Amino acid sequence: MNHEVYMARALQLAARGIYSTSPNPRVGCVIVNNGEIVGEGWHQKAGEPHAEVHALRMAGERARGATAYVTLEPCSHYGRTPPCALGLINAGVARVVGACSDPNPQVAGKGFAMLRDAGIEVIESCMSAQAETINSGFMKRMRTGLPLVRIKLAQSLDGRTAMASGESQWITGAAARSDVQRLRARSCAIITGADSVLLDNPSMTVRPAETGVELEARLWRQPLRVIVDGQLRVGNNARLLQAEGDILIASTRQPGAPLLRPANSGALNYWLSPEVEQVPHVDLTALLRHLGSIGINEVLVESGARLAGAFIEQGLIDELVVYTAPTMLGSDARPLVQLPLTRMAEQLRWRWQDVRMVGDDLRLTLVPSCGDKH
Amino acid sequence: MNHEVYMARALQLAARGIYSTSPNPRVGCVIVNNGEIVGEGWHQKAGEPHAEVHALRMAGERARGATAYVTLEPCSHYGRTPPCALGLINAGVARVVGACSDPNPQVAGKGFAMLRDAGIEVIESCMSAQAETINSGFMKRMRTGLPLVRIKLAQSLDGRTAMASGESQWITGAAARSDVQRLRARSCAIITGADSVLLDNPSMTVRPAETGVELEARLWRQPLRVIVDGQLRVGNNARLLQAEGDILIASTRQPGAPLLRPANSGALNYWLSPEVEQVPHVDLTALLRHLGSIGINEVLVESGARLAGAFIEQGLIDELVVYTAPTMLGSDARPLVQLPLTRMAEQLRWRWQDVRMVGDDLRLTLVPSCGDKH
Repeated sequence: MNHEVYMARALQLAARGIYSTSPNPRVGCVIVNNGEIVGEGWHQKAGEPHAEVHALRMAGERARGATAYVTLEPCSHYGRTPPCALGLINAGVARVVGACSDPNPQVAGKGFAMLRDAGIEVIESCMSAQAETINSGFMKRMRTGLPLVRIKLAQSLDGRTAMASGESQWITGAAARSDVQRLRARSCAIITGADSVLLDNPSMTVRPAETGVELEARLWRQPLRVIVDGQLRVGNNARLLQAEGDILIASTRQPGAPLLRPANSGALNYWLSPEVEQVPHVDLTALLRHLGSIGINEVLVESGARLAGAFIEQGLIDELVVYTAPTMLGSDARPLVQLPLTRMAEQLRWRWQDVRMVGDDLRLTLVPSCGDKH
Repeated sequence: MNHEVYMARALQLAARGIYSTSPNPRVGCVIVNNGEIVGEGWHQKAGEPHAEVHALRMAGERARGATAYVTLEPCSHYGRTPPCALGLINAGVARVVGACSDPNPQVAGKGFAMLRDAGIEVIESCMSAQAETINSGFMKRMRTGLPLVRIKLAQSLDGRTAMASGESQWITGAAARSDVQRLRARSCAIITGADSVLLDNPSMTVRPAETGVELEARLWRQPLRVIVDGQLRVGNNARLLQAEGDILIASTRQPGAPLLRPANSGALNYWLSPEVEQVPHVDLTALLRHLGSIGINEVLVESGARLAGAFIEQGLIDELVVYTAPTMLGSDARPLVQLPLTRMAEQLRWRWQDVRMVGDDLRLTLVPSCGDKH
C-alpha cells in the first residue's frame, strides 16, 4: 500500500485548519479500508472534536481492521476531548500511520505507545517534513516555549518603502495585499509598533472577504493584536482599539488608566516589559516568551522600519516575507528596515525558501542562514 | 507540416551565434526535404558565410524541392557575401518559411520579394516573437539607430551594494558572476564610468573560461569597452588599458595626449561629447547614437551607482538585470543606484520579464513599464 498517497490527502485535510485551529495544531486524518477511503476528518477549532473523531464517525463500522493516517501523533490525554488514541483503539483500527510525533509534553510518544500497547501496528515518520511544516509554529512553541515569528515587509525593487518626506501609498498591488490578509489570518498574533499606530493608524484586523479564502463564518477569528509601545504613546483615538479582537499592549511603563475600548469589542491587556537598552526598549524576547506562554503559535510582525530592524537585528525572525514591487523609489527614499550595520562582517545572511509572483509583485520568502557564507 | 518544429530548431541554431555574430544578427537555417532535415546552419561571424549558405552546402542536391526555414529574412544585397535569397533560388528550394523580416533598410522585404519573384512559396512570421527577441539589439539598432541597452546591477535583499565606508566584497556568488560574464560576452560594448575605473580598477573583459560557454576559440571576441569619463580622470595605470580589446573614451574634453596602451592590445579612441547639465555631463543619448552608428547592437552598462542612476533616470535602459543576494547590508549601506526622487509620482515603474535563481542568488530581469500604474 502506498502510504504517501493517503498521508498526502490527510495533509490536505490538515491544511484546511490553517486559519482556525490555534492554539491547537492543524491535523488531518484519513481512514482506509481495503484500499478505499472510508473516513476523513480535520481538526477545525480548539475545543471541538479532533481530526480522528471526525474520520472515525464517518467510517463507522468500516474503521474495524482499517488503517488510519494521522498527520500528528494521536493524543493520549484527557483534554477538552477524550484521547484520540483510545478512540482509534475502540474503533478497532488495525494500523496507524503517523506523520510526526507530537512534541506536546502531554503526548510526546505516549500516543503511539498507547496504540502499540493495544496491539495496533504503528508506522511513524511518513511525510514528516511536510507535517512539521504545516505546524511549524505549534512545533516551535512546544519545543522552545517561543512562537514562530514571521515578518512581512513590502519594498520597491531598490529596497525602499516610502519617499524621504514620508509620502507613501500602496507600493504593492491588490493580490499582494490579499496575500498579507492570509498571512494575518493564519497568525495567532500580529505585532506592530507604536510608530505604525501613530503614523498609519491601521486596524490590523483580518478581513475575511479580502483573504480570498472560503471558510465557514464561525471559524474565522481575529488574531491577538500586540502593540509594542514602550512609552505608552498610543491614545484612545487609535483605530486598532475600535476594531474587534483582543489587544495586548507591551510596554515598559505601568498605564495610569487603561485605554478605552467599545463594549464587546474584545479584551485589552497590558504586559509589562523589563526595560532593555536596545530600541524599542521593550524586551522583545521576553515578549515572545510571554506570547508562547499564552498559546500563541505563529506571530506576524507588521511594523515600521525601526521595530522590524530590532526584530531582525536581535535574531528573532524565523521567516522573512518580502513583497517586492517592480518600481524604483530612488536613493533618497526610506529604507526597508532600520538596520545600522557598518561592516560587511555584520551582514545578515538568509536562505531562499520560496520565490513566486503574487499578482504584479514578487514574493520572496527566506529563513535565517545558519552562519553559512559564500 | 508543423512549421514550428523546424523553426524552433532553426532558432536553436541561431542562438549559437549569440556571442559571435555582431554587428550582424544571429541567424539559423534548417532545410527540410520530405520531412527530413537535410541541412542546418548558423551564422558564426561577420564576414563569414550566412546561415543559409552553411545549410545549403550541407543539403547539397537534396535542397531541390525542399523547404528552408530561416529565422530572419534572407539578404538580397551583395555585402561581404553574395545575397542568400539568390543562393536559395539557385539551390532550387520550393518554399521558404521565415520567422521575421530584416529591418535592415538594405533588405527590408526585398529578400522575401526576390524569392517570390523566382516562384518560391514564402510563408512569413512563423515564431516571429522568438526571432525578434534573439536579435533585439540588432532590431532596435536597425529601427532607431540606437543599440539595446542592458544594465546589470547586484544588490543585497535590502537594495544595497556596499557598506557606507565603501567596504565591499562579492555580494553575489560565483554562479551569478559567471552569468554576468555571459551578459558581457553577448554584448558588443560595455559601458562603465570613470568612478568605477578609479575605485575598482576592473579590466572589464570577457574571460571565456568563466562563462561556462563552449565555443570555438576563434569565435570569442572582446566587446568594445566604453569609459564615460567627462573630465578625463582615468590615467595610464587603469587595468582596462592593459587588457586586450578596443577602448572608447567618452568625454566632454579633448585629451592633451591620449592614454597609453601596450602594443597590439587594441585600439583606443576618443568620442567628444557635447556637455550636458545632468550628471555625468557626457550626453548619454548622443553616446548611444554614436555606438549605434559604429555597429553596436547590445550594450551592457556595468557601472557605479551614479552613472547607473543617470542611465535609468534618463530613460535609456531597455533591460534591467538585478542579481539579488540573500543578505542584508543594513540601512546605512550604499544604495543600488543614485536616483534622487522626491515624490511618489516620480517613481520609475518596470515590468517583470524573468525571475530565476542563479546559484544562491536571484536574478530579476525587468523592462520599462510603459506608463501603466497600479
